[in-house]
Amino acid sequence: MTERQSSNSKSTKQHPTPDNGYVVAVDIGGTNLRLALADMTGVIAARWSSSTAGSRGADGIIELIRSGVEHLLQQASVPRDALRAIAAGAPGVTDVDAGIVIATSYLLGWRDVPLRDLLEAAFGIPAAIDNDVNVAAIGESWAGAAKGISDFVFLAIGTGIGAGIVLHGQPFRGMGWSAGEIGYMLVPGVPDSPADRGKPGALESLIGGEGIKAEWQRRWSKENSSLRRDLTATEIFDGALQGDSLAQSILEQSARILAYAIYNMSLVLNCPLFVLGGGVGMHPALGDATRRVLEQWSERGQLELTPSLLGADAQLIGAVRLALVTADTRSILTLQR
Amino acid sequence: MTERQSSNSKSTKQHPTPDNGYVVAVDIGGTNLRLALADMTGVIAARWSSSTAGSRGADGIIELIRSGVEHLLQQASVPRDALRAIAAGAPGVTDVDAGIVIATSYLLGWRDVPLRDLLEAAFGIPAAIDNDVNVAAIGESWAGAAKGISDFVFLAIGTGIGAGIVLHGQPFRGMGWSAGEIGYMLVPGVPDSPADRGKPGALESLIGGEGIKAEWQRRWSKENSSLRRDLTATEIFDGALQGDSLAQSILEQSARILAYAIYNMSLVLNCPLFVLGGGVGMHPALGDATRRVLEQWSERGQLELTPSLLGADAQLIGAVRLALVTADTRSILTLQR
Repeated sequence: MTERQSSNSKSTKQHPTPDNGYVVAVDIGGTNLRLALADMTGVIAARWSSSTAGSRGADGIIELIRSGVEHLLQQASVPRDALRAIAAGAPGVTDVDAGIVIATSYLLGWRDVPLRDLLEAAFGIPAAIDNDVNVAAIGESWAGAAKGISDFVFLAIGTGIGAGIVLHGQPFRGMGWSAGEIGYMLVPGVPDSPADRGKPGALESLIGGEGIKAEWQRRWSKENSSLRRDLTATEIFDGALQGDSLAQSILEQSARILAYAIYNMSLVLNCPLFVLGGGVGMHPALGDATRRVLEQWSERGQLELTPSLLGADAQLIGAVRLALVTADTRSILTLQR
Repeated sequence: MTERQSSNSKSTKQHPTPDNGYVVAVDIGGTNLRLALADMTGVIAARWSSSTAGSRGADGIIELIRSGVEHLLQQASVPRDALRAIAAGAPGVTDVDAGIVIATSYLLGWRDVPLRDLLEAAFGIPAAIDNDVNVAAIGESWAGAAKGISDFVFLAIGTGIGAGIVLHGQPFRGMGWSAGEIGYMLVPGVPDSPADRGKPGALESLIGGEGIKAEWQRRWSKENSSLRRDLTATEIFDGALQGDSLAQSILEQSARILAYAIYNMSLVLNCPLFVLGGGVGMHPALGDATRRVLEQWSERGQLELTPSLLGADAQLIGAVRLALVTADTRSILTLQR
């Protein structure tokens, strides 16, 4: 009897159901690597993060992910053979079909890195990769501010600026995998020629986090402010809410430029919902000021701006979703063999 | 043996194949109505056109189409029961699923006209409608400058300006059926607030045919030109080719503004091919000057500008394609009943 039970229990383990297992989500940022372990319903069981300083090559990142996964499995008491899939968002142009990171413009500087193969080789499970902003859009679409919305744009404004476009319920990535690269957009008030590739684009140099900081410092020397010179973009926006007039002026200028970009994208895509994400993009002062500019133009139709619901977790939760889909697809493929 | 052959041949005639029959293509313009009769391989058998002056209501247009179709059938000696489908391009926002022209901003001023039902009722055959710029894009994709290209933008510049976007081989129309309405785009050099809806947009008022004419007249009074004051946009571009410096200055300005719009669209859509159509857009001087501006920005990647191959026929040939697809789809539906 005891022997039989033991045998049954063993047999169940040999045929795992789709609910039985875990996936790993990876958010590769310019300065930080973040990992999550989630069960097959998407509930996060454990998290881990690390600085990527000193390990910016692909092999170093894979080693870091490998070590992070070990920590996650220990933390959640999950055996390694319960892992079903892994998915990663990478900060650059990513060929989703081939599983290759074509180029990253920020800290990593990768060129043609076969990240999907590297992950599959490291863990022996199916892997998927996508651009980090697209992954964040997938997250917001699955469990965030755009849940149930078929067409929307996720606008990430942090150090830089990028858009993840979802059309007909699917990420729209463009023929060269770089749709939504709006940091180069030419709107009223920008220098009237595009920046060279690799350098910050015209729009980005005005309303990316670094651009806002630079504008603050440029004007701080000439105009009066009781605030410090070395503020970050979000601190400048905090200053605007507290009544500092220089900070308010920079907020209004940033909002106007952002409104141009959103308006132009809405003309091309006829898409009414924009989700504002990223450290700078999520600041309520920027969202409110941008909404006020767009409302003055309201005859053009109803544009809806909403902050990201998932915040700094958008990429990680999108990667959970991507890993779940990857696990599921491969399971079906396996069944059909 | 002979009898058998005859019987086979008769049997074939009783069950018409897709090659057996004709479709009607309709191009509803602001000032002209153009019709074509095409066989099921898409070869045009007859054409007809008429001014729409005095018959701008929907009923008047339907009557005009009815009379045109009679002419076409007579002209090609085709019996009326050989008609399999009709398709029309309309100059406005068009709900393709419901078959309704939601709004036209130019001469017709239609609101919520159920054009597909009106056509089906008038002719007793399946009908389809779409926005005229989308229909032109379908034409260029099927038999023109974008043949075999899955992702491209058809830019129509005539009196106004509009874009027909094709993504993954399908027209992309947007959630409110008005994707590509770039006449309102805000780029460097335009007034920094959008125009009210219904009025010409910022971009349109600069590089639509009327805008170019207005700019010519404004500057003609102040600057020297040996050319007449009452030139059309294409005549102004002809003047630029002939060496008139005011005309050249206006050409360069138009090309620069157009380059901004194309560049911004390419950032959003990551789409390398732009087909220039419409009377103004097809002028070789504008295409060449715009290409020169974009080439200065070439680090951003290879944008290809090409003139429409179908020219003034783009809409009509796109409507032929739409009618053929409509006839085909309904045939399959009939078989499944």
